[in-house]
Amino acid sequence: MLGAILTANSLELNMDLSITSLLNKLSPYLLAADSASGGEEKATIAALVGTAGIIFIFSVLLGEICTRLQLPTVLGDLVAGMLLGGSVLGLIVFSSEGVEVNTSLLKGLELVTGASSGIVEQAYRFQMKEFLNESANIGLLTLLFTTGLESNLKELIRVGTQAATVAITGVFVPFVLGTVVLIKFFGIATIPALFAGAALTATSIGITAKVLQDIGSLKSDEGQIILGAAILDDILGIVVLAVVLSLVQTGEIEISNIIYLLTSATLFVLGAIFLNNIFGSIFVKAVKKINNPAALMLLAIVFLNACSLLATAIGLEAILGAFAAGLVLGETEFQEKLQGLFEPFIFVYTTIFFVTIGAKVDLSVLNPTVAANHQGLIIAACLIVIAILGKIVAGFTLFTDKPINRLAIGTGMIPRGEVGLVFAGLGATTGALSNSLDAAIIIMVIVTTLIAPIMLRFVFSSSATSDNSEEYAENSETDCVPVSKFN
Amino acid sequence: MLGAILTANSLELNMDLSITSLLNKLSPYLLAADSASGGEEKATIAALVGTAGIIFIFSVLLGEICTRLQLPTVLGDLVAGMLLGGSVLGLIVFSSEGVEVNTSLLKGLELVTGASSGIVEQAYRFQMKEFLNESANIGLLTLLFTTGLESNLKELIRVGTQAATVAITGVFVPFVLGTVVLIKFFGIATIPALFAGAALTATSIGITAKVLQDIGSLKSDEGQIILGAAILDDILGIVVLAVVLSLVQTGEIEISNIIYLLTSATLFVLGAIFLNNIFGSIFVKAVKKINNPAALMLLAIVFLNACSLLATAIGLEAILGAFAAGLVLGETEFQEKLQGLFEPFIFVYTTIFFVTIGAKVDLSVLNPTVAANHQGLIIAACLIVIAILGKIVAGFTLFTDKPINRLAIGTGMIPRGEVGLVFAGLGATTGALSNSLDAAIIIMVIVTTLIAPIMLRFVFSSSATSDNSEEYAENSETDCVPVSKFN
Repeated sequence: MLGAILTANSLELNMDLSITSLLNKLSPYLLAADSASGGEEKATIAALVGTAGIIFIFSVLLGEICTRLQLPTVLGDLVAGMLLGGSVLGLIVFSSEGVEVNTSLLKGLELVTGASSGIVEQAYRFQMKEFLNESANIGLLTLLFTTGLESNLKELIRVGTQAATVAITGVFVPFVLGTVVLIKFFGIATIPALFAGAALTATSIGITAKVLQDIGSLKSDEGQIILGAAILDDILGIVVLAVVLSLVQTGEIEISNIIYLLTSATLFVLGAIFLNNIFGSIFVKAVKKINNPAALMLLAIVFLNACSLLATAIGLEAILGAFAAGLVLGETEFQEKLQGLFEPFIFVYTTIFFVTIGAKVDLSVLNPTVAANHQGLIIAACLIVIAILGKIVAGFTLFTDKPINRLAIGTGMIPRGEVGLVFAGLGATTGALSNSLDAAIIIMVIVTTLIAPIMLRFVFSSSATSDNSEEYAENSETDCVPVSKFN
Repeated sequence: MLGAILTANSLELNMDLSITSLLNKLSPYLLAADSASGGEEKATIAALVGTAGIIFIFSVLLGEICTRLQLPTVLGDLVAGMLLGGSVLGLIVFSSEGVEVNTSLLKGLELVTGASSGIVEQAYRFQMKEFLNESANIGLLTLLFTTGLESNLKELIRVGTQAATVAITGVFVPFVLGTVVLIKFFGIATIPALFAGAALTATSIGITAKVLQDIGSLKSDEGQIILGAAILDDILGIVVLAVVLSLVQTGEIEISNIIYLLTSATLFVLGAIFLNNIFGSIFVKAVKKINNPAALMLLAIVFLNACSLLATAIGLEAILGAFAAGLVLGETEFQEKLQGLFEPFIFVYTTIFFVTIGAKVDLSVLNPTVAANHQGLIIAACLIVIAILGKIVAGFTLFTDKPINRLAIGTGMIPRGEVGLVFAGLGATTGALSNSLDAAIIIMVIVTTLIAPIMLRFVFSSSATSDNSEEYAENSETDCVPVSKFN
């Protein structure tokens, strides 16, 4: 009966994949409790379980291809997302209207759960819009937290002033250059040009840290300067973003807001540095008093959440709080244990985060055979050049008399990663960016993320301070996320 | 300005906790980006991060109290949920209407995010209804998966027939006894009585496995029989539930449905047993081919999800699929590594699962000073007696000529745990159960879960086959979930 109905329905549907007919053949042998109350619950669980499975299979397969091509696996996740997204397979579709969801997927979920097609599509849409977005947020917070865990606070302070000049130039040069070029040469309006310029300022701490770890240079002078500059970049980026957003919304720049953000960011960073020991020792004492193996993990999350909320409360981004939390707990005796405990979360949730980013890319605007896309592609090429040159210039502004690889520092700051995409995403939702400019930013992010590890290998192997190109060749075959000494 | 508005508003609100006034005093120093697009996103993240933090703090504190009282920490989570729920603090409120959310919490979220109160309450309600429920589902699936991982398939097969008699009696006796007593002595209608009877059949695999592990008896003959019987119990419970549900919905019992469920469950279990080696070796080969440290975790989740979907497709519960997946992967060389990888998920998500269960309990019906509640409390007392006696009787029906501790087997099956609550929850949503009967079932679940570890300590220490009461005294100070040899 159920099978008959489904077979009849399928005649009216596009048989986009042969799996649909296979599922129809199977349907007489499948029976699911189609109860009024259980149906929706089952459909929701099935949508969750099904989409997570699809995401992970694609991530593993494309990550493996990247590894064999000596590329970082994070690219595999981004490409996996693009393939799964509305532009290609339609298995992960975020927009609530317009884009079609893969009919085979919906049909499969219907057969598995026995729920009606309306309930299944609703459950699926919910998964996409809410649960995947939330999971991606968890992934981003966890990534920043573990980066903080692995960073050395004292080293960061030591290189602080040197990192500051790099960060400020690395924000200023691409921002101004990008905005001016877009306005002068492409006739783009001021506000979208400013948005694109802001996206050029970003440095992805996550990807940078991972690349540094891969080449074994996280603790070198260059590595610590890159990391310090990337953190400052993030703070400056938030200020730039706030300025651009207030311009979009009110048409004018609020100076008081900029001063407030700079002050609160400074206080937050100083707080993390000077109150570090106090918070760390309170945390250690609390965990040790509790005879529960789950307590370390749970209290670390509580601390991470409290720091994220505090950062949000003073107008900064939650990810900065997460990084600060990791920095504080990274100085305690639990550092290594926490790395092990959070590693599975990194595996699962940063995968979802990067795949989600890829899935949100509208690939159709990149088709070079469509004449309307040509401008977007030319803009993308310009943005890529500015993105790379802007950061390399920043590396040479470093103020030091010690011998140091300035080219390596600039190169290390090239990957824009998730931060650039966050900017692009915000621009798209506020309506400030056109589709082609949005796509151009995304191509810029992807190319800079792709090119940086390859460039760094050459730049660091010519460096006097770190000679570990062989180690890189071995380590590069690992994941994009911090890998601890997990048992 | 923001502060002034909030202070003015707070005069109209109940100042239920002094934290509200503290937050108001702080508000002039807090500023959050109140952008149109960012506000909702920020509020959602803050609600997620805030509620997770609150859940974990309560879980750790109450778990510690339980540990010091020599009780399993899972009880701490249940009690934490009750305190956080709508009946007491109102920090975790699931129902979409009626129950008030804690105003201090909402006020705090408003101040942190700078979003309007409407957006904050919407984001909070969403967190409760959807995200916590999803997280609880992940917790349940992970718990069953790791229980499967730790189980020994060959042992389970060896004790299979012995476990079958225990399981069948353990389902039949409490079901019939419970239903008859409720109808005859309390004048309860047939359908709610059948539902309550069905809830009495459950055995919590998760809690049972944990208790057995705590007393070091998971691999003893008694332990394996208890585990095998608990699994069969779960399958039989699904059949009973399907029967009762079809009665509620159609008013009659469909024999074909029962036969179908029994057949598919048998085939599923046989499939897991006989195809075990094939799936296991395919999995091992796939993981070994991939040079990605995340691959083991991600492919394990893919396998877990596929098994859950298969179980759902043939009309069984997803948790049975999760258990089967764990059983298969537990026979591979990756068993120990997988236990380590899934442990942090157990820490986080089973905590959310048990707290969520507690938060859904409506405590008001248990107040003994309200005359209307007396019947519910008396029913609860009766259900508890039936729940304990029913399972102990089942232990004595064991068919073997070897010396074995029959009392221990029956006692090991006493905790109803999450399975009983799932039944109660389904009954409540279908409207079949009255509030007092629902509450009575929940008290029964809590008391059986509480009493079993205490009873087992005495029962097992008098046993000839396992003498490890001292080990128990030490191990009992651990969490309610499987704790692997995690580094």
